Amino acid sequence: LKILYQLSKAGKLCVPAMNVNDSVTKQKFDNLYCCRESILDGLKRTTDVMFGGKQVVVCGYGEVGKGCCAALKALGSIVYVTEIDPICALQACMDGFRVVKLSQVIRHVDIVITCTGNKNVVGREYLDRMKNGCIVCNMGHSNTEIDVASLHTPELTWEHVRPQVDHVIWPDGKKIILLAEGRLLNLSCSTVPTFVLSITATTQALALIELYNATEGRYKQDVYLLPKKMDEYVASLHLPAFDAHLTELTDEQAKYLNLNKNGPFKPNYYRHVSAQRKTCISHN
Amino acid sequence: LKILYQLSKAGKLCVPAMNVNDSVTKQKFDNLYCCRESILDGLKRTTDVMFGGKQVVVCGYGEVGKGCCAALKALGSIVYVTEIDPICALQACMDGFRVVKLSQVIRHVDIVITCTGNKNVVGREYLDRMKNGCIVCNMGHSNTEIDVASLHTPELTWEHVRPQVDHVIWPDGKKIILLAEGRLLNLSCSTVPTFVLSITATTQALALIELYNATEGRYKQDVYLLPKKMDEYVASLHLPAFDAHLTELTDEQAKYLNLNKNGPFKPNYYRHVSAQRKTCISHN
Amino acid sequence: LKILYQLSKAGKLCVPAMNVNDSVTKQKFDNLYCCRESILDGLKRTTDVMFGGKQVVVCGYGEVGKGCCAALKALGSIVYVTEIDPICALQACMDGFRVVKLSQVIRHVDIVITCTGNKNVVGREYLDRMKNGCIVCNMGHSNTEIDVASLHTPELTWEHVRPQVDHVIWPDGKKIILLAEGRLLNLSCSTVPTFVLSITATTQALALIELYNATEGRYKQDVYLLPKKMDEYVASLHLPAFDAHLTELTDEQAKYLNLNKNGPFKPNYYRHVSAQRKTCISHN
Amino acid sequence: LKILYQLSKAGKLCVPAMNVNDSVTKQKFDNLYCCRESILDGLKRTTDVMFGGKQVVVCGYGEVGKGCCAALKALGSIVYVTEIDPICALQACMDGFRVVKLSQVIRHVDIVITCTGNKNVVGREYLDRMKNGCIVCNMGHSNTEIDVASLHTPELTWEHVRPQVDHVIWPDGKKIILLAEGRLLNLSCSTVPTFVLSITATTQALALIELYNATEGRYKQDVYLLPKKMDEYVASLHLPAFDAHLTELTDEQAKYLNLNKNGPFKPNYYRHVSAQRKTCISHN
Repeated sequence: LKILYQLSKAGKLCVPAMNVNDSVTKQKFDNLYCCRESILDGLKRTTDVMFGGKQVVVCGYGEVGKGCCAALKALGSIVYVTEIDPICALQACMDGFRVVKLSQVIRHVDIVITCTGNKNVVGREYLDRMKNGCIVCNMGHSNTEIDVASLHTPELTWEHVRPQVDHVIWPDGKKIILLAEGRLLNLSCSTVPTFVLSITATTQALALIELYNATEGRYKQDVYLLPKKMDEYVASLHLPAFDAHLTELTDEQAKYLNLNKNGPFKPNYYRHVSAQRKTCISHN
Repeated sequence: LKILYQLSKAGKLCVPAMNVNDSVTKQKFDNLYCCRESILDGLKRTTDVMFGGKQVVVCGYGEVGKGCCAALKALGSIVYVTEIDPICALQACMDGFRVVKLSQVIRHVDIVITCTGNKNVVGREYLDRMKNGCIVCNMGHSNTEIDVASLHTPELTWEHVRPQVDHVIWPDGKKIILLAEGRLLNLSCSTVPTFVLSITATTQALALIELYNATEGRYKQDVYLLPKKMDEYVASLHLPAFDAHLTELTDEQAKYLNLNKNGPFKPNYYRHVSAQRKTCISHN
Repeated sequence: LKILYQLSKAGKLCVPAMNVNDSVTKQKFDNLYCCRESILDGLKRTTDVMFGGKQVVVCGYGEVGKGCCAALKALGSIVYVTEIDPICALQACMDGFRVVKLSQVIRHVDIVITCTGNKNVVGREYLDRMKNGCIVCNMGHSNTEIDVASLHTPELTWEHVRPQVDHVIWPDGKKIILLAEGRLLNLSCSTVPTFVLSITATTQALALIELYNATEGRYKQDVYLLPKKMDEYVASLHLPAFDAHLTELTDEQAKYLNLNKNGPFKPNYYRHVSAQRKTCISHN
Repeated sequence: LKILYQLSKAGKLCVPAMNVNDSVTKQKFDNLYCCRESILDGLKRTTDVMFGGKQVVVCGYGEVGKGCCAALKALGSIVYVTEIDPICALQACMDGFRVVKLSQVIRHVDIVITCTGNKNVVGREYLDRMKNGCIVCNMGHSNTEIDVASLHTPELTWEHVRPQVDHVIWPDGKKIILLAEGRLLNLSCSTVPTFVLSITATTQALALIELYNATEGRYKQDVYLLPKKMDEYVASLHLPAFDAHLTELTDEQAKYLNLNKNGPFKPNYYRHVSAQRKTCISHN
């Protein structure tokens, strides 16, 4: 996605593109809602760890981090958050998480989870200080968040204990449990519910149909967001699965709100006041 | 705010204006975080109702509705949601709330809360069907959400039982408990924590300073969002109150993310992909 | 209650007594469920404090402590627990609370709540170390948990700021906010929902009826628990308020479980295996 | 265990026995805390189901049921409870769950979980009415809770889709997803954390040591609960794993509470007021 925007900026994008990733339903489902479940699933399948009472640090409080934090807190873990963005940090505070620097907690946490979209968030200096048995895994956007390369040095011993699980052992006997060699835990060690696949596939299909059907010149060689109404359409297609019943606006109400009764339900001026940051930069 | 945008659209705005209301910190604090607490406070101070086991319907699942739902669910209420927007409705489903039409639940709920920004959401036809002792209140943006006017008919008896609390009694003896005559519960029957006031006042003060200091022509006669960096600044000023410690980007990481180490932490292209709907239209 | 048991042990009880306090419904409602709400209500009405992001230490993790911790955690506070009983301490861990000594956290918490049933849990040595603006209150069984007497020394200034709220000011200007002068917050600064009153009054009335109707010699001069079946009866009388529907055992199931279809639903041998500690000693 | 008590009652128990199962730590860990995690794990590993938005009915609100309900609610499921015991039913209400008869919800739930300790809780009449794709599993004490035998009739087709997962297909094409053929999900499809094994093994080892070391005649041919102090000892041995720090009573406090500073921390008279029902009969 980043590359698409860079191409666009550089004027090198030769076709119109839809930024499906930033559609609301996609964002929420692939990130917050899906990760809320897959962090638990991924950790259980690889380590059988008990969540209750565990101390966990989650690096990054974007959608992915929010999902991981909420799930682990709900199951009795004590969760710390690291953040670079003051707004996300304040959200973490209000949601009941202590916002710390990694160095404040690295010696006593049981689990370290990265979801920043950044690189070298957990470097060798932190890996060296983790306690024996600490579990380290990545829920972010690439395999760069944990500096796994730094662990390939002669004094450390690697033991491959089962698929996706390595023990890295220090000379003094301390070991850490590295999952998926630092690659994405949710892709490597968990599964994706069919419901989420359906949301994603529907969004992608609608984007392609939109691009195909659009009148000549409607879309230029740029990156576009899925039209809001289509985002709403994807959502509405999935409501019956939950036996959910939408309320319809009366004519009087639609007029009062200055909306079309069939949506989109966000008024036009919202387009231009884009500052709402649903996702913080700290995650992909 | 709506009026400001209408003036702007009509070309009748004679000074630049800052839309402080849609700054992230303001939104989150005045709406989600503050309402999460004030719904409980407002209901307790007026009615002493026990939340555990109560059935509640919350109309509108924007920031205000999300706050009300989360608080009541956490204290053991069973919460139903009504929505017009399929995206907000899907969020409600994933957060564990049944999405219903008001008519499906109006006969058996104990509490009705409006947070839609809409008008006549709870009309006389619903008030007639509520059960005896049902509490009705409004957390939305104006006093139009509950059609209080419809209750001023000869066959209904009003009893003012204490400040902000009226009993409206039907001929058969059924009574409903109307709070603040349908005006905002959080303003009428609850208090605003000084922390929230501080966030709001800081945001407003910074907006004024920005407008005052801006070079000639920087702002036209239009409505502007608070520059993102200032939003972040407001947040960072309030972090020490929580003993929260921000992580700083290394030079290498800032380069990797293509960000200034001091923020803003959301890259520029996010401005143009405005579809993130943090607040749904259903609320103010 | 303690006195009743002491009298009984000393053979000085001259009438049979019912220990209504330890009936299950009374325990749960007056303690866990009621305190879960009244801690929030009591703090809001006296101080308007925002719960989100606040650091709180709760002394004692019995029913009252569990209720306070659950409510504050749900509203975004970061909660620490102190305990003397390892079983309650382990429960606190599994519920996601850090178990600490008061001295570990006293310097940086925003709110201190006692619910131990013990005396001098918060002594002057802790009061001296609290940070400026710290709120101190008691949800336990008497006014001895906070050593308020120790605050009546010449160098400290007391300011009565409003009913139930005193500022105690140190020579260096630090002040703490003492609620209800250390008496019970839930009785002094909050209200009791009618639902809870109904549970309690029903239990007491049934106990009196049982004692009055009992055949000569059924009850000796001792302290008795409310017969289990009556406890269940109190509960069943309150289920319709929640539109709750009990399932009835089939004949075959009752036989399989060796139970009477009308209860009591706990088999007789459970009477003798009393070790289940629903309430820890740490609270009244 | 039931058999032990029956033998004891019949005078046929030929050695003393320790009821380790009803020790507090064992109860809480093997039941509430462990099931809170294993219900999620067992469902994910077998079906990859998404929990968010799912409607679930949990039969039985004892420790196991409470664990299942809490976990699923936390992850966004809408949970209904069935109960035979009015006290447990009232607890379910106060914890925010609708208490229903199975017949009220069986047609529209997505998942059915039994944790009653009872037999034929989900009989063929309910299996017939489930919707297509409904998942059925058992977390209770034996394989009798779901009437699996009733599904072995000629008109139903069984498809074994993977280990522990069967599809049972009705003539009209409706299928239900039966896990572990109705045996215990937590034993068949999930794992037990080493922490829980440690609690259980420690408790059993201490019970054996106690029986072995006891003076002649201390234990008769009966079933005994683990002495309370030992239960506390097991808990205290596991606190360091959570970096939990117990508070010690001062001499003055121990005297005030009439307790030994080293425990047991529950006063003796609590033994005789056994009515606290931590576990309801509805589960094993």
